[in-house]
Parts: sequence; C-alpha cells; structure tokens
Amino acid sequence: MVGNRSRRTEIDEREFHAWLARTFPSGHGGLLPLGDDAAALRPPPGRVAVLTTDALVEGTHFLRRSPPARVGAAAAAVNLSDLAAKGATPAALLFALVIPPGTPRAWAEAVSRGGERLAARYRAHLVGGDTKPGPVRAVVGLALGWGRPNRLAPRSGARAGDLLATTGVVGRGGLAAAHLRAKGRPARHVLCELLDVRPRLVEGRALARWATAMLDTSDGVADACRLLAQASGVHVVVEERRLPLAPGLAALARTPADRRALAFFGGDYELLLALRPRDFPRAERAVRARGGRLTRIGRIEAGRGAWLESNGRTIPMPPAGWQPFERTSGRSR
Amino acid sequence: MVGNRSRRTEIDEREFHAWLARTFPSGHGGLLPLGDDAAALRPPPGRVAVLTTDALVEGTHFLRRSPPARVGAAAAAVNLSDLAAKGATPAALLFALVIPPGTPRAWAEAVSRGGERLAARYRAHLVGGDTKPGPVRAVVGLALGWGRPNRLAPRSGARAGDLLATTGVVGRGGLAAAHLRAKGRPARHVLCELLDVRPRLVEGRALARWATAMLDTSDGVADACRLLAQASGVHVVVEERRLPLAPGLAALARTPADRRALAFFGGDYELLLALRPRDFPRAERAVRARGGRLTRIGRIEAGRGAWLESNGRTIPMPPAGWQPFERTSGRSR
Repeated sequence: MVGNRSRRTEIDEREFHAWLARTFPSGHGGLLPLGDDAAALRPPPGRVAVLTTDALVEGTHFLRRSPPARVGAAAAAVNLSDLAAKGATPAALLFALVIPPGTPRAWAEAVSRGGERLAARYRAHLVGGDTKPGPVRAVVGLALGWGRPNRLAPRSGARAGDLLATTGVVGRGGLAAAHLRAKGRPARHVLCELLDVRPRLVEGRALARWATAMLDTSDGVADACRLLAQASGVHVVVEERRLPLAPGLAALARTPADRRALAFFGGDYELLLALRPRDFPRAERAVRARGGRLTRIGRIEAGRGAWLESNGRTIPMPPAGWQPFERTSGRSR
Repeated sequence: MVGNRSRRTEIDEREFHAWLARTFPSGHGGLLPLGDDAAALRPPPGRVAVLTTDALVEGTHFLRRSPPARVGAAAAAVNLSDLAAKGATPAALLFALVIPPGTPRAWAEAVSRGGERLAARYRAHLVGGDTKPGPVRAVVGLALGWGRPNRLAPRSGARAGDLLATTGVVGRGGLAAAHLRAKGRPARHVLCELLDVRPRLVEGRALARWATAMLDTSDGVADACRLLAQASGVHVVVEERRLPLAPGLAALARTPADRRALAFFGGDYELLLALRPRDFPRAERAVRARGGRLTRIGRIEAGRGAWLESNGRTIPMPPAGWQPFERTSGRSR
C-alpha cells in the first residue's frame, strides 16, 4: 500500500503509517501488521469476498471545516452501506487519503480515528492506510466484507410480481440539505447531520435471505428505482402515499413537487429491495426484531423504467440530485 | 460502489457504469455484474484475501497529457506490485476515478481499458468502477488477491543472518526521471516509460516460499531498506558493489553521489526481500527459471537502521525521493 511519497505534504506517509500502526493495534482479524504492503484476511468458511470502494471529496461531500472524525466516519459508512446492500458482514476498511500541502497531521489522524470508530461498531476495522498529495482533501474508502454466495441480491434479480420495500425513512438526506440551504452557509451541526450515515448492515444481512434484488439509496429512492429497473429489465412503481417520509419533511414542503424534491434528493443510505409478496411479512418482522423498519413502497411489474403512482396517476419518476454544497458555494470553505 | 452523483462532470457515473458493464463482460471470476453496489469473489480453498490500495494523482504521478491507457495500466500495476510483495495471486481490480469538470469520457474509458488490459495479463480483471468529481484527475486503484496464510512474508519477519536480495535491476525509475529532467519538459515516450510498471507477480509467488520479509521498491531500494529495518527491528546493510544497476545508469552518473541519487530515486517496483543464506541458491534458480533475476545485494544483522557499504566504509543509507514532476513544473500540464 505504500506508494510514492511526496515532500509537498506536511504529513509524511511513513510517519502516518507508524502512527496508524501504533494507534490501531493489529490482530483485529488482520494477518499482517498495519503498514505492510497489503492487508490480509482469512475468509470464513463458505463465504465470498464482497468488495467496494467509495470516496468523499472536499467541496462535494464535505467542507474543509467539516469535523474530520465525522468525515472519516461517513467515509467508512458509505462503504459499509454498499456491503449492507449485498447482505455482507464487514471485515476490513482501508483509507487512501488525498492531502493538500499544509494539511495538519491531526486531520488525517482524526479521519482515521473516525473511520475506525464507525467500523468497529460493526466489528470491522481499519487495516490499512495510504496518503497521496493532491489539491483538495479526499477520503477514498475501500471495504471488504464476507457474503453468502447465493444471497448477494444482485440488482438484476427483481422480477414482475415482486414487492418493492425500503428500510428506514425516505428523505433524511434531503431534509438535512434543506436546513443547509436555508442557512445559506452550513452550520456545524448540519454538516454533521449530512455526514451521519448509518449503514443498514443488520437489516441487510437479515434481508438478503428474501431480497431478489437489493441496493442502497445513496442517491435517493428515485434514483435507486431507476437503477433497479434498468439492471433487472423491469417496470418499477413507487406508490407515493406509502413512502415513510422523514419526520418533519411533510411540514417543510409547501407543494407536492417540494415534497418530492426533498424525498428523492438522496443521501439517505437506506436499503431498497424487491422481494416476493409472500416473504414480506417475515422480512418485515425480522427487520423489526432487529430494531429496524421495513416499509412496502411499491411493486415490480413487467415493462421498463421507474414510475411514481400519485393520486391515481402514474408519472415518470422525478429526477434526483445529491449535491449538498453546489447551491451554497462553488468553492470549498 | 455507486456514490454521490454530480452534474459537474461530463462523465455521468451511470453511463460510465453502463459502459464498463458492456465493455468488460462479467463472469471473470466475479459473482455480481459489474456496476452492482459491490463486487463479489469466491476465495480459492485455503487462501486468504490480500487487499491493497494505491493511487496515481495528476501532477504527481502523471500529467494531463499522459496517455490515459498507460495511466490506467500503471494504476493497476502499482497495486498488483503490492500483491506481488505478499506472494499473492491477483484476482480483482477496482478503479475509483476522480474527474474534473469537462473531462472527456474517452479519458475514463481509456484508463479503464488500460487497467483491465494490464490486469488481464496476470489473469485478474476489472470488476468495479466508480467516478467522483474533483479538481484534478486521479486514479485510485484497489486490488484483491489470494495468498497463502503462512507465506505472506511480513515486513517484520527479517532476522539477523538473513541475506538481502532484489529482483530485476536497481534505478530504472531514476533513469527514466533523469531523461525527463534532461528534456525540461517530459517527452511522451519518457512519460510512458515512467508509467511502465511491471509487477513482479511471478517472482513474488515463487519467492514467498523462502522470503522471511518482502516488500516492493516503489520508493526505491534505499527507502525499502529503511522500512524493512524499522519493521523487523534489524540492521540492514546494502553492499553497493553488488547492486544490479539499470543498464545505462552508470554511464549517466558522473560521481558516486550521482549514481546513488539515480539508483535510489524510486519508482523501481521490484521486490526486496530477506531470506536465509541456504535458501538463496534455490530462490535464485526459481526466479531465473521464470525468466526473472534475483541478486544478493546485502545482509541483515543485529542492530538498527539501514546502511550502505561502499569501498569498505559503512555510511547511512542516502535519502530517496520519488517526485518525477516536481522539478520540471509545480503545475500539472
């Protein structure tokens, strides 16, 4: 994992590695000390490796003044959310940090601590880190989990006759972004809220048993429906009245269009899945037994595309867009 | 793997995913179609997952006009080089691309093709891709391989009495960088040469049997010796006269200091290893039988630090620095 060093950043990669190795004791399932060329993990019997990468970039997903521990936690969480969507159990997290000259080492340390703390909540650990010089800060996360080979719930698995369901509530990301826009300049607690992603790992593992297709709603329910429709070659219908809107969302929206813009804005990181109608009651109970929530929000039919059923009319799914800082500033602060 | 979309880049992540899925047929060992939330791979019996990440950033490791297929190949190769150092067999490659607004889609496609082509040479394949907006281009690679649990050659495994050996030649990166500096502005063929990393996977697999510790020389032999000395808590001595210098290097260097600067510059991506003296002849034959080269370059003693033995004197290992574009320009071109 050691790459090309630069003198242009105040964080020396070697010192950072040494700090990582001191701070995060190995033996968390890793077979090599942290800071080696690679991390090594033993697969549990009968499981398959599930692998994902997702990055948070300064100016797009966080600001320079965002609390770095929260940025690290969010970078870990968005990767674990992808593992959740495949019903996998997380095992290991790696961070590749892109760091501009003059960045204090405390930033990289706090990002790493935040990532480790979040991962540890789900019994996964930071097993590797890397730094590169670059013009803005970025945290590229990489997560390895272990899944069951026949329960990976591929996006392409939805079939006509399935129900459509979601965990949690819809529009949490949109609501946070609305607060941010209302203030002109994002307040610290709003930034924290935007970065507060809770990966649905417990729910994902339970649901993989029944899900014919599953994915996370990182870009919102509408967008996830489009992806599901495309990958499975089906017609996805969301019944608007069934949507479990985030508390406070309905009160904030003056028109149905407002409500949709908030609901479908993105950044929810819930799980969207298709499943057989006969399996829904058991799936719902299983999620509820684990402290979660599963709501039927629509259905899968033969055909193509993603659609919204609202007051008896079926309209094309409205667009979604997750760009929290675009409207407040073109530059990172 | 699907993250937060941006309208600010001309590459739409969804279109890029669709292109990836069309271009790189699944079934290359992957259990999920390319473009799903994660990639899934089945571990071979008795093997452990070996995981690494390494990034190439525009302005540091390549220029805007660097041939993108070469950039992709290099991004794949530097990650596979880390797997080689752990004796692992590569299985899967993922790319997270950071892309500034206005970047032509052809760039991302060529990077991906270049990465896949290089990985395929070693029977690994591109199984996932992701794009994020950002101010400069960057290719974050992530590689998964399968290793043998008791043959991971941790950096911490070198012991007093071991020999020190390297594959290939020393100073190939320094030589390429010298050509680059001589021209003021790097010529296309020199950029290609700098990006021409050949991961020593065949050698790594063979050597893992005997190596007590192994790492790649991404930042040069001197730097790798320092890392080895630190991780193993030993005294590493390089015997300068034994160094297998890259052809043409000696002719270019006017002084011993010049020669060292070139030799230890970095970007070699060979394997440096410690092994028992009695194992060296067999290890050397095994590498030669596979078309490679293994040279004894020093020894491991009790003590601390990395040292150079030159004309009967023992001096501290000179510094190394791999920063090919720093001296020609502060900005990327």
